[in-house]
Amino acid sequence: MSPDFRVGLLGHGTVGGAFAVSLPRHADRIERVTGLRPVLSGIVTRSEGSFDELLERSDLIVELIGGIEPARTYVVRAIEAGRHVVTANKQLLSHHGEELWELARTQGVQLRFEGAVAGVVPVIRVLQESLAGATIDRIHGIVNGTTNFILSEMATKGVAYGDALAEAQRLGYAEADPAEDVDGSDAAAKMAILARLAFDTPVHFDQVRYEGIEHIQPDDLEYARDLGLGLKLIGTAERIDGGLSVRVHPAFLYGRHPLASINGPFNAVTVESDEITEVTMSGPGAGGPQTASAVLGDVISAMIPPASTPATSERLEIVQDVSSAFYLHLEVADEPGVLATVAQVLARHEVSVKSVVQKGLGDQARLVMVVHPVLESKFAGATAEIAELSVMRAPPRAIRVLEEEFV
Amino acid sequence: MSPDFRVGLLGHGTVGGAFAVSLPRHADRIERVTGLRPVLSGIVTRSEGSFDELLERSDLIVELIGGIEPARTYVVRAIEAGRHVVTANKQLLSHHGEELWELARTQGVQLRFEGAVAGVVPVIRVLQESLAGATIDRIHGIVNGTTNFILSEMATKGVAYGDALAEAQRLGYAEADPAEDVDGSDAAAKMAILARLAFDTPVHFDQVRYEGIEHIQPDDLEYARDLGLGLKLIGTAERIDGGLSVRVHPAFLYGRHPLASINGPFNAVTVESDEITEVTMSGPGAGGPQTASAVLGDVISAMIPPASTPATSERLEIVQDVSSAFYLHLEVADEPGVLATVAQVLARHEVSVKSVVQKGLGDQARLVMVVHPVLESKFAGATAEIAELSVMRAPPRAIRVLEEEFV
Repeated sequence: MSPDFRVGLLGHGTVGGAFAVSLPRHADRIERVTGLRPVLSGIVTRSEGSFDELLERSDLIVELIGGIEPARTYVVRAIEAGRHVVTANKQLLSHHGEELWELARTQGVQLRFEGAVAGVVPVIRVLQESLAGATIDRIHGIVNGTTNFILSEMATKGVAYGDALAEAQRLGYAEADPAEDVDGSDAAAKMAILARLAFDTPVHFDQVRYEGIEHIQPDDLEYARDLGLGLKLIGTAERIDGGLSVRVHPAFLYGRHPLASINGPFNAVTVESDEITEVTMSGPGAGGPQTASAVLGDVISAMIPPASTPATSERLEIVQDVSSAFYLHLEVADEPGVLATVAQVLARHEVSVKSVVQKGLGDQARLVMVVHPVLESKFAGATAEIAELSVMRAPPRAIRVLEEEFV
Repeated sequence: MSPDFRVGLLGHGTVGGAFAVSLPRHADRIERVTGLRPVLSGIVTRSEGSFDELLERSDLIVELIGGIEPARTYVVRAIEAGRHVVTANKQLLSHHGEELWELARTQGVQLRFEGAVAGVVPVIRVLQESLAGATIDRIHGIVNGTTNFILSEMATKGVAYGDALAEAQRLGYAEADPAEDVDGSDAAAKMAILARLAFDTPVHFDQVRYEGIEHIQPDDLEYARDLGLGLKLIGTAERIDGGLSVRVHPAFLYGRHPLASINGPFNAVTVESDEITEVTMSGPGAGGPQTASAVLGDVISAMIPPASTPATSERLEIVQDVSSAFYLHLEVADEPGVLATVAQVLARHEVSVKSVVQKGLGDQARLVMVVHPVLESKFAGATAEIAELSVMRAPPRAIRVLEEEFV
């Protein structure tokens, strides 16, 4: 039996509830990797439970209550008691980050907050650690999934802002009171945190200028599309003349911009620097399980010694014969029945054709097709047999096709 | 004066040379952030310098010699001597990773290797730390910039493989001997490392099946484009029936796949999991300064206590009036001279028009334009004056446009 690592949870809403489910589900694997067994030592909410008792029996406090108070008091008390703290609270950090980070340094405990910005997209850790060796010039981010979903709906379906918002609420991407999302203030809090980390300078929420998307008209999106532009709610933090600008506003992007392809409730952040060119990260920006996963990553980091690669905890068999879809290019004689002959061979090997086009005539005749996923050994058997057909003018050419599994 | 943190460098090629320039350039900032002053304690190459002497006077060894030997011996000896090690050596880790990670755990030192896969794209740290709380199902990666550049050239210019390779060599994206890049073995070594971290299971280079791109024909790319497909060299590591498949091969992607838009010498990795949906990271996959930046990030991480947010080291002024390009939508009376009137007002406020279209007639007449970047205060002055013009039928509507600054 490994020693316990006791995790006390504050808050039991969407993210807190998902975290409470996720921690025990991953406990075996975390124990194998860290040598410590994570246990949920208790849950305290705004209305139930004693924080004092929870603190007493926890090695680390996860704060998912949100808002300034009582979250701030709890976090301060946990740090003062020498406990590590993991939080996803953007309001708290964009208003009181400096005092909390200072306190954590003084007490020698960890204060981690990956879940506070862009959910599971690891932008906090990347700015704090991976890019610590780069001088950052600019950050652009889509850091609010609700507004990105609404703008995507307006652009693709031509619906008005109010209808897109209602759809977002129906799907759970927007809350009953969406004010902080749609007026830009949620994104502003997140950009304050990113700017603080990227530029090593104090940035308070009140210093971020922001605009929302309520005033956007469907015909603006339509006209702009003619100009090759798509609309996003963009957060920007950039050096300007030795100073810093941090702002959030709707902005049109050209199609080639790395953020132009981020649609629906996804988030993405692009970090620019002369030395690194640019690094872009994207993924789901919200959602209980996703944000809980970021929180759990922070908890595990607090349990593992820095930059240790734990011993392997699995010994998976390496599989060689896998399923793939294929593109298949055949140079064939231009005579009747060729397609039927080829199709029979494919069918005998359980290879199913998804689409096929015939190109050219005479010596230039080609069959170009895409087949559905099939075990590679079966596909190889089929193409070996096709290669022997008298109608073939050159060896078959095959290239794998990745199936669409993405949203 | 802060205490010194002595960094010994092995290797002085493209990445080593860039690192030797980068470390002193960032020394002041690193000292402010970490409280330690990083100094380059010496450089040893295959042909010059004494490793024993370098080890004696270093707190951390950066290994950028590459290949298995003498890199392996040096790394083992550094760890045994209790020194932290940062390396970018994919061959070494894909062949001897387990023994080195085990040794580092035993000795209680850090062995970091972000630069070994995808350059500055922070995929190692994200797998090891951010996503430690997720059960990963699959990784797809474009982890070789040389081949991605060649395939991009073939697709966009219709040139043959040999010509695209020559262009890659001319631009410095491919080495004189490109064998390991184009035959897929470089990508295979990287996928072995990623699979080891994602699935907690031992993965040796020899267990990765790989194919290269030498046999790809331009007309395959052309036919496939008709089917909506683009070609990439894709590394895959995925759970299959309780086992693991790790492989590298050319594969067609549909346009909506998150890796489909990764062009030129860039790298990208997509990590999939039920809990997190998917996270994608992209950026420059090679290049001296870029990879050196990843190495420097690892060095700084070794210097900072875990998850400490250092005190701010700057106090940048917050800038409010910034330059932006704008989309401007005007509902105007449909009469002669309207455009001239509007243009005069814009010009007086130094707002320069990039493109303008006139839409509709009569009551539906619109001027829709994009203007070049201008201080927002000047643009606001211009639109305030335009709003007062007698030809205006509704208040002007303005939305910012992000200029194209990206490759």
